Amino acid sequence: MSKRIRLTVAYDGTAYHGWQLQNNASSIEGELNRAIFETTGEEVHVIGASRTDAGVHALGNIAVFDTESRIPAEKMFYAINPALPRDIRIVKSEEVPEDWHPRKQDCRKTYEYHISTGPVELPTKRLYAHYTYHKLDVAEMDRAARLMTGEHDFAAFCAAGSQAETTVRRLYTAEVFSRDDEVIVRVCGAGFLYNMVRIIAGTLMDVGMGRKKPEDIPGIIASLDRRQAGPTLPPEGLFLIGYEYPEESKEI
Amino acid sequence: MSKRIRLTVAYDGTAYHGWQLQNNASSIEGELNRAIFETTGEEVHVIGASRTDAGVHALGNIAVFDTESRIPAEKMFYAINPALPRDIRIVKSEEVPEDWHPRKQDCRKTYEYHISTGPVELPTKRLYAHYTYHKLDVAEMDRAARLMTGEHDFAAFCAAGSQAETTVRRLYTAEVFSRDDEVIVRVCGAGFLYNMVRIIAGTLMDVGMGRKKPEDIPGIIASLDRRQAGPTLPPEGLFLIGYEYPEESKEI
Repeated sequence: MSKRIRLTVAYDGTAYHGWQLQNNASSIEGELNRAIFETTGEEVHVIGASRTDAGVHALGNIAVFDTESRIPAEKMFYAINPALPRDIRIVKSEEVPEDWHPRKQDCRKTYEYHISTGPVELPTKRLYAHYTYHKLDVAEMDRAARLMTGEHDFAAFCAAGSQAETTVRRLYTAEVFSRDDEVIVRVCGAGFLYNMVRIIAGTLMDVGMGRKKPEDIPGIIASLDRRQAGPTLPPEGLFLIGYEYPEESKEI
Repeated sequence: MSKRIRLTVAYDGTAYHGWQLQNNASSIEGELNRAIFETTGEEVHVIGASRTDAGVHALGNIAVFDTESRIPAEKMFYAINPALPRDIRIVKSEEVPEDWHPRKQDCRKTYEYHISTGPVELPTKRLYAHYTYHKLDVAEMDRAARLMTGEHDFAAFCAAGSQAETTVRRLYTAEVFSRDDEVIVRVCGAGFLYNMVRIIAGTLMDVGMGRKKPEDIPGIIASLDRRQAGPTLPPEGLFLIGYEYPEESKEI
């Protein structure tokens, strides 16, 4: 009797070439497939919700796979974790309907981009934040972020070479706040274009440095021109926080 | 004209065999000597305030060296940092009197020990906290910590093989608090015995798990017996926060 298992997966992306299976490089997907094989003896190919890029971190990416294992679904993460390297951890496992798919359209996805500030980059922050010595005006960044919310054509915030059918996306919330010496950009949306969060963060950092104004945001969006938005910030500051599927009315 | 420079140094200890110069292994001291040589052309041997162990982190260790360089003292950290690996950063440089020595007795030294909790260890915390799946009673840990303050013979909290002349030390403050999913042990003292902070943290973790009671602390101290205290926790949770030298009436 086969059942479908949904995993909530946290990882430190530093050592990986991203989520997606690679032939000659380590990936989160590859490590999960291997660890599940070592645990259940079944060759599986997990389906991920988000194919995060090399170096990007996650607290709650989602993966599903089908298994005939008799390990109870909600205990499965205890069984698989010992077969995973310490920089990948399944934080939750549960049974879902056999037709449940993690990339359906009606979910909410939350990302954070962490920027560390101060006169010198702190070594213990370097793997989990993008450093800048510029002072950032967080209130202005927050004001600009809120002007990005809603449904827009985000073509100006999409990396070249994206194969998306449409560049229209809905951003439910976007905000910027400080915590300790970090400035955090937090966005929640129904899906994101390639590099979209890192370009949003780069554009907001431009605002924080005074290179752009919050009032410029509507015009940048309307331009549909990638060159009008800010730079794509590096992957180490990006965290996939988690998914929320509406039928469940709780954050996963 | 030679002048003495004091450096405040932050580092991620993960990749190092500790502060102290090693023949065949990387050390913070060795990297500083090399970087200063590359910057000034002078062969120096920095004197450190604390010879932290392999894997221990620092936000504010102290080092001094003498130089004839004409780089202004307070700009020197900008000049040296580019020659250092990204996991070591000088956060401040300043001139001190030529007889100033970082290991004088009348300073206050602050350490934190970080314990991460929750059902599963978070990959992005694993390098900077010791993980436990046990629920910790933070209020009881804090009560126990406060019973450790004052001047005591801390022989029970000293690793075997220590060459200290006396095991009497003064602990100014000791407290335990939560921040996000972490439990933080914070101690301030006039000097610590070998492994003392990691044994204090291990003893307080025993209290947090209910294996010891706050009321046991005075007896553990009085026993002078290492076996009465808790385990030595691993280095990755330990942070040397900083030094305070009283003549300056400010934290460095």
